[in-house]
Amino acid sequence: MPPFEDFRLARRRFVHKRKIQWGDCDPAAIVYTPRFLDYALEAIDAWMGEVLGVDWYTMNTKLGIGGPQVHATLDFHSPARGGEVLDLHVTLEKATRSTLAFLVQGRIAKRLIYTARCVTVIIDRKRFKSIPLPPTFRRRVDAILGAKSS
Amino acid sequence: MPPFEDFRLARRRFVHKRKIQWGDCDPAAIVYTPRFLDYALEAIDAWMGEVLGVDWYTMNTKLGIGGPQVHATLDFHSPARGGEVLDLHVTLEKATRSTLAFLVQGRIAKRLIYTARCVTVIIDRKRFKSIPLPPTFRRRVDAILGAKSS
Amino acid sequence: MPPFEDFRLARRRFVHKRKIQWGDCDPAAIVYTPRFLDYALEAIDAWMGEVLGVDWYTMNTKLGIGGPQVHATLDFHSPARGGEVLDLHVTLEKATRSTLAFLVQGRIAKRLIYTARCVTVIIDRKRFKSIPLPPTFRRRVDAILGAKSS
Amino acid sequence: MPPFEDFRLARRRFVHKRKIQWGDCDPAAIVYTPRFLDYALEAIDAWMGEVLGVDWYTMNTKLGIGGPQVHATLDFHSPARGGEVLDLHVTLEKATRSTLAFLVQGRIAKRLIYTARCVTVIIDRKRFKSIPLPPTFRRRVDAILGAKSS
Repeated sequence: MPPFEDFRLARRRFVHKRKIQWGDCDPAAIVYTPRFLDYALEAIDAWMGEVLGVDWYTMNTKLGIGGPQVHATLDFHSPARGGEVLDLHVTLEKATRSTLAFLVQGRIAKRLIYTARCVTVIIDRKRFKSIPLPPTFRRRVDAILGAKSS
Repeated sequence: MPPFEDFRLARRRFVHKRKIQWGDCDPAAIVYTPRFLDYALEAIDAWMGEVLGVDWYTMNTKLGIGGPQVHATLDFHSPARGGEVLDLHVTLEKATRSTLAFLVQGRIAKRLIYTARCVTVIIDRKRFKSIPLPPTFRRRVDAILGAKSS
Repeated sequence: MPPFEDFRLARRRFVHKRKIQWGDCDPAAIVYTPRFLDYALEAIDAWMGEVLGVDWYTMNTKLGIGGPQVHATLDFHSPARGGEVLDLHVTLEKATRSTLAFLVQGRIAKRLIYTARCVTVIIDRKRFKSIPLPPTFRRRVDAILGAKSS
Repeated sequence: MPPFEDFRLARRRFVHKRKIQWGDCDPAAIVYTPRFLDYALEAIDAWMGEVLGVDWYTMNTKLGIGGPQVHATLDFHSPARGGEVLDLHVTLEKATRSTLAFLVQGRIAKRLIYTARCVTVIIDRKRFKSIPLPPTFRRRVDAILGAKSS
């Protein structure tokens, strides 16, 4: 587990870059709405891999656990176009026994494109039932959220 | 414009069916989350075509107007699997000068899979600015929402 | 196993309908190219379910076998637009020990939009190695291809 | 126009990197087949932007021309999994009056995952008819293909 300071950093500055592809856009020549949820989940998954040490693919195929979404809210502020590069800022906002709540802010340069809030629940894959966050997740999550409130 | 009774009907019973495809599912063997927003928009677009008489494609390519989303909220209640058929119940809940607010409930038989609330704004495509609902939209929307409150 | 005549029928007339969605189209206001491969696989999977009795989802999640593609060729003849309905005509052209070769012709009314040829290999999921077609597949495939050559 | 040597370089070594996302994979826990065509087009579009100076989005929304595919062939050699990074090697193989023929080889480290051949035709967007390659395209294409044969 990386030292405490890294988590403070991770929490504050985690940014995932995503170039908007031709095929992500619709006949209005802007990003097709559901792609924004794709991008948010891609950014959260990158955060999981980097901060918690395992991404969804590894969780599901190696560890027998999963991380489906139970909730998502999206607010769209400004359109995004092909070729532009989104900076997706990921913040862990809250954790319960089994869930992680994320805020993702998508920016292109200084322009806020959209915000997404996603709630992931950690489950036992076989029973499809929520379980407590695994101890390594819990320690890191507490370090981050402690850092946040301090 | 179809007679008033049809709108009451449309409002109450509009259901769009969508079979869940192999390619809609992820390695957890359930629907990949953003597909649920795809399905909701597909159902709303079917509603637009049938109830308002023009879908997004026609609006954008023929009429010079567009209908981007400004907001979406999704709550997931039960997982959905490949081969299952979603009944997507679309309800127009509210209209303002330029926006339409929809509720989409996705069910498989009696099981509630998810709910989505989406807010669409009608815009002038060239200026990318909101405009009042076109008169034909307004008349039908008022008929539906009048029917709703009566 | 349905009677022989049904397979002749299935082979000759299997058509899967697919409405082109707003989100399937790109800023050129035509179908985004990879969607045509999506549609072809959706049609082949429908054929698998109906003619062989199991679709890919069931094969993978229940039977421990899979059906990945080893080859695909696509030729595009005419553009397709939002709201149009594709008739996807699926023909089994050939079978080897482990593979099935399909032709999919996508038409909108009388207009030929594209053709796809896809080769699926049946594998043991765990070892990711090809296996002989299961006996039920083999019987039906032979009935179809026998019908074809007769 | 960059100096000649750059094109030789571009032709020989153009590589686009693409991380395989959770949502790109299907319930077999490998990349869903049509995503490979997505990746190939994404890589070709990156090549267009870098080597020809305009990507499809700019061609379509600014220049009144388009670059739809008329043909695609895909051969799959080895499965690819979530979290792996594809190196997509793009080679312009041939050009005619209106078309560009590309080879895309997708590798993960030394392992060849798939090859794609795609033929793009340059069209006048409004008439949806092929046109000669624009002069800037032609000069660069000839420089590359000249370099190739030399």
